[in-house]
Amino acid sequence: MPKVAILMGSKNDLPVAEKGTPILKKFGIDYKIYVASAHRTPKRVESIVTESDADLFIAIAGLSAALPGVVASLTTRPVIGVPVSGVISLDALLSVAQMPPGIPVAAVGIDRGDNAAILAAEILSVGTPAMREKLAEYRKEMEAKIIAESESV
Amino acid sequence: MPKVAILMGSKNDLPVAEKGTPILKKFGIDYKIYVASAHRTPKRVESIVTESDADLFIAIAGLSAALPGVVASLTTRPVIGVPVSGVISLDALLSVAQMPPGIPVAAVGIDRGDNAAILAAEILSVGTPAMREKLAEYRKEMEAKIIAESESV
Amino acid sequence: MPKVAILMGSKNDLPVAEKGTPILKKFGIDYKIYVASAHRTPKRVESIVTESDADLFIAIAGLSAALPGVVASLTTRPVIGVPVSGVISLDALLSVAQMPPGIPVAAVGIDRGDNAAILAAEILSVGTPAMREKLAEYRKEMEAKIIAESESV
Amino acid sequence: MPKVAILMGSKNDLPVAEKGTPILKKFGIDYKIYVASAHRTPKRVESIVTESDADLFIAIAGLSAALPGVVASLTTRPVIGVPVSGVISLDALLSVAQMPPGIPVAAVGIDRGDNAAILAAEILSVGTPAMREKLAEYRKEMEAKIIAESESV
Amino acid sequence: MPKVAILMGSKNDLPVAEKGTPILKKFGIDYKIYVASAHRTPKRVESIVTESDADLFIAIAGLSAALPGVVASLTTRPVIGVPVSGVISLDALLSVAQMPPGIPVAAVGIDRGDNAAILAAEILSVGTPAMREKLAEYRKEMEAKIIAESESV
Amino acid sequence: MPKVAILMGSKNDLPVAEKGTPILKKFGIDYKIYVASAHRTPKRVESIVTESDADLFIAIAGLSAALPGVVASLTTRPVIGVPVSGVISLDALLSVAQMPPGIPVAAVGIDRGDNAAILAAEILSVGTPAMREKLAEYRKEMEAKIIAESESV
Amino acid sequence: MPKVAILMGSKNDLPVAEKGTPILKKFGIDYKIYVASAHRTPKRVESIVTESDADLFIAIAGLSAALPGVVASLTTRPVIGVPVSGVISLDALLSVAQMPPGIPVAAVGIDRGDNAAILAAEILSVGTPAMREKLAEYRKEMEAKIIAESESV
Amino acid sequence: MPKVAILMGSKNDLPVAEKGTPILKKFGIDYKIYVASAHRTPKRVESIVTESDADLFIAIAGLSAALPGVVASLTTRPVIGVPVSGVISLDALLSVAQMPPGIPVAAVGIDRGDNAAILAAEILSVGTPAMREKLAEYRKEMEAKIIAESESV
Repeated sequence: MPKVAILMGSKNDLPVAEKGTPILKKFGIDYKIYVASAHRTPKRVESIVTESDADLFIAIAGLSAALPGVVASLTTRPVIGVPVSGVISLDALLSVAQMPPGIPVAAVGIDRGDNAAILAAEILSVGTPAMREKLAEYRKEMEAKIIAESESV
Repeated sequence: MPKVAILMGSKNDLPVAEKGTPILKKFGIDYKIYVASAHRTPKRVESIVTESDADLFIAIAGLSAALPGVVASLTTRPVIGVPVSGVISLDALLSVAQMPPGIPVAAVGIDRGDNAAILAAEILSVGTPAMREKLAEYRKEMEAKIIAESESV
Repeated sequence: MPKVAILMGSKNDLPVAEKGTPILKKFGIDYKIYVASAHRTPKRVESIVTESDADLFIAIAGLSAALPGVVASLTTRPVIGVPVSGVISLDALLSVAQMPPGIPVAAVGIDRGDNAAILAAEILSVGTPAMREKLAEYRKEMEAKIIAESESV
Repeated sequence: MPKVAILMGSKNDLPVAEKGTPILKKFGIDYKIYVASAHRTPKRVESIVTESDADLFIAIAGLSAALPGVVASLTTRPVIGVPVSGVISLDALLSVAQMPPGIPVAAVGIDRGDNAAILAAEILSVGTPAMREKLAEYRKEMEAKIIAESESV
Repeated sequence: MPKVAILMGSKNDLPVAEKGTPILKKFGIDYKIYVASAHRTPKRVESIVTESDADLFIAIAGLSAALPGVVASLTTRPVIGVPVSGVISLDALLSVAQMPPGIPVAAVGIDRGDNAAILAAEILSVGTPAMREKLAEYRKEMEAKIIAESESV
Repeated sequence: MPKVAILMGSKNDLPVAEKGTPILKKFGIDYKIYVASAHRTPKRVESIVTESDADLFIAIAGLSAALPGVVASLTTRPVIGVPVSGVISLDALLSVAQMPPGIPVAAVGIDRGDNAAILAAEILSVGTPAMREKLAEYRKEMEAKIIAESESV
Repeated sequence: MPKVAILMGSKNDLPVAEKGTPILKKFGIDYKIYVASAHRTPKRVESIVTESDADLFIAIAGLSAALPGVVASLTTRPVIGVPVSGVISLDALLSVAQMPPGIPVAAVGIDRGDNAAILAAEILSVGTPAMREKLAEYRKEMEAKIIAESESV
Repeated sequence: MPKVAILMGSKNDLPVAEKGTPILKKFGIDYKIYVASAHRTPKRVESIVTESDADLFIAIAGLSAALPGVVASLTTRPVIGVPVSGVISLDALLSVAQMPPGIPVAAVGIDRGDNAAILAAEILSVGTPAMREKLAEYRKEMEAKIIAESESV
């Protein structure tokens, strides 16, 4: 069973994480959530990442959102970064996306914990072909939902 | 041998792609480059994506950079999006990163064809553990280069 | 009777569409509303556009608002794009307006479903001169409303 | 033969206009170019617009780009607005796109005189079906050019 | 008695105007408020400006805020522009401030109807020295208010 | 003869000032230029402003452009602020335009030393009606120049 | 006992100051709060700064936030600047951070009165080594709080 | 003799550092420059910071400029952050300035290595009163230079 470690910079980021956890469950992906701040608890981030047997990491943070990049600096496993909205919002997106050459983060959109989970499933499907069928089914459900919405308009 | 398909919206985006191709070679990843515009050649994008046996896609585009999202709409394999700089630059980053719920793109930084290639290797390492050793070695080389730079200052 | 097809990326965009539909009615323009996402239902967008006998399209979307551009990629009939506000808002405007050379979208302002409808009438008046009289009358009504507002201040 | 009037706020905007004029010629659209500033020559703009027998207007301007909106305030024929790049660039795009309710401008991208011309052809095709064939052919040429580019990579 | 004409693009801008009118009264400046849109009622704006005997104009508008620039295009008397906040807010500020060479507008801050009124008094004091004493007194009142605030902290 | 004091934050701002000085001369306005930084020479700014017999001030500055606001804090005479372009450019515009309630600055566009001079003439015309004729003539010259430009296209 | 003077541009900024004052108390730092506007009470700012025996200054302001820079222009003691959020928010950050060469301000994040207080303690610890122990303890408390948060998730 | 450790994310940032090193020398501050990337060499950053006996740190970085924040996470000594310009520039400023509560960075302006050095001197003067005299002298030199510039205009 594939594993994902979710780190978030503050407990306030939980609603963003929780957009994704039902999706991870749906895809049969095991996950564990940690509150761990790149700035306030750097040692803790380091030990979580280096001791984790997760296949990939999802890091969620706002403001000067260093967490995804710091996680990426500690592992060569894929890291998905989720910027969190705030007074500026663009600060978190730029901090997550504009990584220097050498240490990539896979940035998804602002507050998009859901897309982080789906991207995790897509990445894990590289080693787990059965996942691809589940993803195809998920898309069909989305399509059906949109058609139903369209008919209700 | 893992495979990557690189789509770019215009031949002008080639220098961004070429930041990444030597890295893909170094990691033993097979790749093929296509010029294909989401807006000017939508059918071509569709046939490239649906007929491709690539394990993942890298899509490179500027301005209203729809290409990564359109590729992602056509596959459940991972799609890495590379925004290309221009008069505004933020337009391409926002177009690539701010995907709606359901269809994620893994955005890397503006003009970061290099990071797209490294992220590709990280994602492919999920199914190809040998890749992880190469990634670790690549990091050591980067570290050595920085130490050498530091000593030359 | 001229026809307009209105596509919106999500049912949440309905209030923006509904700023425009009473105006289309007033101008005697027939319309049909579809929920259809460029990213989640690309095939559906394609079949709506290619099967439609609409004279022009209005496409409404937020975030990385690819819908107007994708519709434009599938037809040579005029496409009006309406960016929808959100956490950033500028993302949708840039995605709609900054189209690459070759495939134009006629962007109106953020959340301006009303202006999309009026622009539709102006465009349709190219082939339907009677529309121009209705447009002139509509302007007179606006003017009268402003004079009334001014007197009430 | 359909007619377009091109107004630009300054002679410096000529290169943007000239991205579009060969396209207008190709589509058999007659055009006339005027330098006329909404701010420095308001009476001149008014007489050009009210005396013109053009089927639609293209207005090109930078900075606080009022010209497209001012042209639109003087006619109910369609007005395409082209923002011109400068120190900020976003100023011109916002000035052109963010029109108030009632008076739409069809904004194209920054410096996109080419897309203004193609959009003009698409709009004029509403009353001139033969134009649609030319547009379809133009798209095929673009597609062929992209395939050729792709093969040369 | 000096006179000011206040034009606002919509009745919704009244709260911004009303931040300034008590200040104009305090300084003994006569004023008249008009709702008049540069885009929806261009002729009305023209007749208000050309028929007015005001010593200066205050123009208040949001979005693509053309009103201050259009008023300035019709007179050589000073024009103060007040951008109004909205979804973007920066659109109005850039439209008001980024005037092309030749036709200046004196831009004040977003929603700063109060500062428009004080600037009007400062400008009118050029021809009315008695105004300067009132302005000096007004500053003393502000200073006293701040000292009182400071003591209450 | 009316007088203007021009303060600029650095000698590097001279080209912006020199867009305006020929215009001031043309309008018969006496002026004196000072280099004086709000941040590096606050006492100097204070003595220039309080000892000056200028009718109004033009303050030119880039970055965190405090100079116009600081001059305004020291006088009740009108202060025109000119933001200077740089790496960000928007920083200077926001610093000049977004003044708090009570102390207005009349902001002109980025690098618009020319408009600062014309606005100075417009303001001084409040007390010097002969200036208004010169301003009207200046507009005619601009108009003639635009017509000539238009004919040369 | 080390001393800090806190200046804020308006009484409305008090909640931002009060994020920091409990922290200053905790670190045994004496402080005094003043309302004093760089623009409305420049003389008052000057006398507060020049008469103060504070070891450093914290200046809090929004909009065109000149206060931190003006305080810095009056002293060579360290000045911490806190931008306050508003309609734009970026205006205050740019005004505080983008100081010209020669007169630095130590900018902290938008509304971050708490970080201003901690930075003050860090700076004062340069001359007061005992402060460093308190800072280390404060970090441990933060870490413990985050671990507790993590366990509650 | 006080000591400063300068960390920069890449050798390309050297010109920014070198704006400050002559100033540090002038103030009798000892310094050492390191190239050390928060993302590519996290262990190296950690050992530099924890083993350093510097009184404060200057951290210089562009893009998603995590270096200042990461240094700050490893020490309670003051950390000055210098954002470096690039395609966006605002990315680095926001990453440096928008630190979360608890771990402050003292941000200076974009590319302002000079101000970082002066701020270092101001901070060190808290424990070294003789530094304050040097700072006062430095300001006098700046003032004299500005007066000389003013006379040359």
